[in-house]
Amino acid sequence: MTPSFPKCRLRIVLAPGVAFGPGKADLLQGLAETGSIRAAGSRLGMSYKRAWNLVGALNRDFAEPLVTTEKGGAGGGGGARLTPLGHELLERFRRIEAVMLEAGGADLSVLQGAVKSPLDGAGEEK
Amino acid sequence: MTPSFPKCRLRIVLAPGVAFGPGKADLLQGLAETGSIRAAGSRLGMSYKRAWNLVGALNRDFAEPLVTTEKGGAGGGGGARLTPLGHELLERFRRIEAVMLEAGGADLSVLQGAVKSPLDGAGEEK
Repeated sequence: MTPSFPKCRLRIVLAPGVAFGPGKADLLQGLAETGSIRAAGSRLGMSYKRAWNLVGALNRDFAEPLVTTEKGGAGGGGGARLTPLGHELLERFRRIEAVMLEAGGADLSVLQGAVKSPLDGAGEEK
Repeated sequence: MTPSFPKCRLRIVLAPGVAFGPGKADLLQGLAETGSIRAAGSRLGMSYKRAWNLVGALNRDFAEPLVTTEKGGAGGGGGARLTPLGHELLERFRRIEAVMLEAGGADLSVLQGAVKSPLDGAGEEK
């Protein structure tokens, strides 16, 4: 996957100690698409343990679980499915990201255009 | 300062290795308001060294400097002023944040409303 720029990372602190950001969003999306905690984590370069911990945090921090899990499952690494609330929160997070890119597009372009091009810094210490 | 929630943290990766996020934006704003790297940094709980390093990164990563510095200066900790480009980029970053909060407001409220209230988790291990 070739990264495209600018890339906006949105992190929402919903309450003290409760944040929802790109890592959790990408993990939820991966779970929805693969049905497996191991597969979703590995796609993000995340250890199985870290993916499990994030799922635990998501289920602990919200009033209802965002993910249902079962031992074994697809890929033998713990099956997982998003609950309706999990689907809804992921969709809303993606919508905020999209709105930001669309409405902030002109400002983003100016910020990006102000970055020094690699040639400007040729021979210069970084 | 009482934090209000939800709090959105926007981090923009403008090019490989060049990011602009809340830390740099708050530092630029502090520099504009205090004229001192030490004062701007300390307001953010940032060491003088870290504030200097961020200023250095900002000036290195953009085609023109965002900050002009002088030894000594206000507070004896190194005077600093934003250049016109520094002011412009800060203003545009704040505008993207504002647009995101305004256009994404309804989605943010739903995300926030789904968080478990402190009472739900009473007596539960965190």
